[in-house]
Amino acid sequence: MKQPLHRRQPTPGNPRVQRTRNRVLAVARELLPQVGPSGLTYALLAERADVTRQTLYRHWPTRAALLFDLVLEGPDLGTYPQPGNDVRDVATAWLKSLRAGVSVPAVRTAALAVTAQADHDPDSARALVRISEDRYTGFNQLLEPSGIQISEDEFTLLYGPVLARLFLDRGQVTDAFIDAVVTQWLTTLQHADTPRDFQ
Amino acid sequence: MKQPLHRRQPTPGNPRVQRTRNRVLAVARELLPQVGPSGLTYALLAERADVTRQTLYRHWPTRAALLFDLVLEGPDLGTYPQPGNDVRDVATAWLKSLRAGVSVPAVRTAALAVTAQADHDPDSARALVRISEDRYTGFNQLLEPSGIQISEDEFTLLYGPVLARLFLDRGQVTDAFIDAVVTQWLTTLQHADTPRDFQ
Repeated sequence: MKQPLHRRQPTPGNPRVQRTRNRVLAVARELLPQVGPSGLTYALLAERADVTRQTLYRHWPTRAALLFDLVLEGPDLGTYPQPGNDVRDVATAWLKSLRAGVSVPAVRTAALAVTAQADHDPDSARALVRISEDRYTGFNQLLEPSGIQISEDEFTLLYGPVLARLFLDRGQVTDAFIDAVVTQWLTTLQHADTPRDFQ
Repeated sequence: MKQPLHRRQPTPGNPRVQRTRNRVLAVARELLPQVGPSGLTYALLAERADVTRQTLYRHWPTRAALLFDLVLEGPDLGTYPQPGNDVRDVATAWLKSLRAGVSVPAVRTAALAVTAQADHDPDSARALVRISEDRYTGFNQLLEPSGIQISEDEFTLLYGPVLARLFLDRGQVTDAFIDAVVTQWLTTLQHADTPRDFQ
């Protein structure tokens, strides 16, 4: 559980294939903030990573799949939290990890590109929903020792203000802002009956 | 104050220029969801709106400026709330108006495009910050009768979950979800001292 953005299990496989995959992702991560999402063509990526375009298509049949992996497999920042008993501590550590993850330029660019393309590209839309689900499941795993599991609505209430501040306000997420988010979010959990979804 | 996304004052001017401007925006609003942001070229827009490209550049020197107007001047949905005494009522009505505004396909597409481009295009970044500021100012105007004015952080705590649900989870914002957002947000206002920013 060291991946910063809650990839639960990397696909296992042949070590040489894995090495190629990781190398291509590292090159893509470096290129993406420089050239932007539309500039990250398979032709450019193949040249810079010294692989064939066929190899790229074998690993990532669609650009959405590549962007998906760039979002979920950012560099290991060592910030992914441990499971814990205290909901406030887990939520605070998780939001700080999210902040660190989306501050990596390639992760940020890839996440925004997938989001913007999702309305016109079904692969991107599916990738985005899988990213949300992956994060949601990972967060509930961290909460397991506390005996609390949250609904998807409650999850959105937690992470929404942080990504809005970073992506829409284009502002800083301070520790004090994270504390304010977690404090108001805990009131929702305290008032909740079962089931806690608001549909 | 009938604009759904809180444009405070339309630029006044020559009525014929205004008519041209409104007609171009209406054509752009129709085209954008069909062709996507990269397909909405000035060449295509000039042809469909029957104006010259020079006219387009006079109104919108950058594409970011055009997308900005498409976000802030959606069609009048008649949902923009009235100022009021009751903070819960104002916040609830405002979030419903926001939901209606960003459900207009052209507004949604334009907002996502500006967001995704902002990291690589300073004009888009400025447009996005102006959109946030415009909404924030508009919301505080609605709150004036209540005697309460909120900070930018508090504003992000309010709108963040709604846009995250729509754009990132790609899910529905139900009335119950809005109620949950407002309920937890009010606890932040109740606990607040002055100043209420969390920097």
